[in-house]
Amino acid sequence: MKHAVISNNVIRRLPRYLRKLDELEKQGVSRISSSQLGEILGLTPSQIRQDFSCFGSFGQQGYGYSVTSLKEQISQILGMDRDTRAILVGVGNIGRSLIDKFNFNDWGVTLDAAFDVNPALIGTTFRGVPVKSDKELIPYLNENKVDIAVLTVPREVAKEATQQLLDNGVEAIWNFTNVEIVDPYSKAIVENLHFSDSLLALSYYLSERRDREAEENQ
Amino acid sequence: MKHAVISNNVIRRLPRYLRKLDELEKQGVSRISSSQLGEILGLTPSQIRQDFSCFGSFGQQGYGYSVTSLKEQISQILGMDRDTRAILVGVGNIGRSLIDKFNFNDWGVTLDAAFDVNPALIGTTFRGVPVKSDKELIPYLNENKVDIAVLTVPREVAKEATQQLLDNGVEAIWNFTNVEIVDPYSKAIVENLHFSDSLLALSYYLSERRDREAEENQ
Repeated sequence: MKHAVISNNVIRRLPRYLRKLDELEKQGVSRISSSQLGEILGLTPSQIRQDFSCFGSFGQQGYGYSVTSLKEQISQILGMDRDTRAILVGVGNIGRSLIDKFNFNDWGVTLDAAFDVNPALIGTTFRGVPVKSDKELIPYLNENKVDIAVLTVPREVAKEATQQLLDNGVEAIWNFTNVEIVDPYSKAIVENLHFSDSLLALSYYLSERRDREAEENQ
Repeated sequence: MKHAVISNNVIRRLPRYLRKLDELEKQGVSRISSSQLGEILGLTPSQIRQDFSCFGSFGQQGYGYSVTSLKEQISQILGMDRDTRAILVGVGNIGRSLIDKFNFNDWGVTLDAAFDVNPALIGTTFRGVPVKSDKELIPYLNENKVDIAVLTVPREVAKEATQQLLDNGVEAIWNFTNVEIVDPYSKAIVENLHFSDSLLALSYYLSERRDREAEENQ
């Protein structure tokens, strides 16, 4: 499928639509209007219609959208049908949690291998994913298709590990290290899960509410 | 400090500015211009000036911004000076990783206690944080100041745990469960770390690039 260029804001909303459509499909809902979907998600119907029109999906007047076909379209746009192959680098608590609990396959991604420096882990297998030595990383990258590297190493070695991955052909990194691993002009595709940014946003919204309440009570 | 109302987009950028200013301060940089900061962050100088003017900080023509005072202002806006108290519910791999590795204190938050159902964990202490029984949760909430609950329980019990927290006065939840724990009209302040949304965005950007390259090579 040819990709339309879609704005970042829409891209960020697509996974949320997808989750909700999946839920609706499981509940046996086959069609939904933009008003109903808006009600469920806390968005306006026109916002939803605009988002969907970005990738050429238009609900039928009076009939709404087909849940299944909308879900399939969004999955395709997000690249979920592309046999994306991933490795994970750093099998600490976060890495372990992702291997054990996160269903990569649900999102069109296969986690093929994990790498660590710890001899106690090397050679073990978690949920079908073999843990290999960090010394095997470069040969592995040279011999296998690796689309995404999940970076879960300690922050001290984050930049070094990133350089190794990029130098050996990895284009996309899912970064859990809480540090910025590339400069903003890098060609690498990096998706950061900066936990602290998220906590600070929460802290802001809480502070803002308390200030507002304090003012109202004066 | 009275809070100005700041747009969500600016709020989302503030933690990033803060991280960079902290780095600069540690390198001994005392003043920085919007052009220099823009260069480092991949933003335009006018974007930066506009963001900072939202909270009343204006660089001096020819002198730029004081790194330390800008950092302090942003910290205050984000509520980092408010003695925010947190608990963590669910000491699995993710919960454990947060207790062990995430420096809550760096962000003005004190993690006072954790809760779990596992008898093997109850009564232990990780990095100074005591693990208590889930049966102690409600009494704890009634007797202590709890501003933020970090939700790291298995997804199956996410909604039930959320209800318990909200019913007992918690206003803000940092949600790691990958499920939507409240409806969009809830008064609760919820900050989600939806790992799958982040992976899907990465998958999109990678797919989009590959399509573009394939087209260019035709």
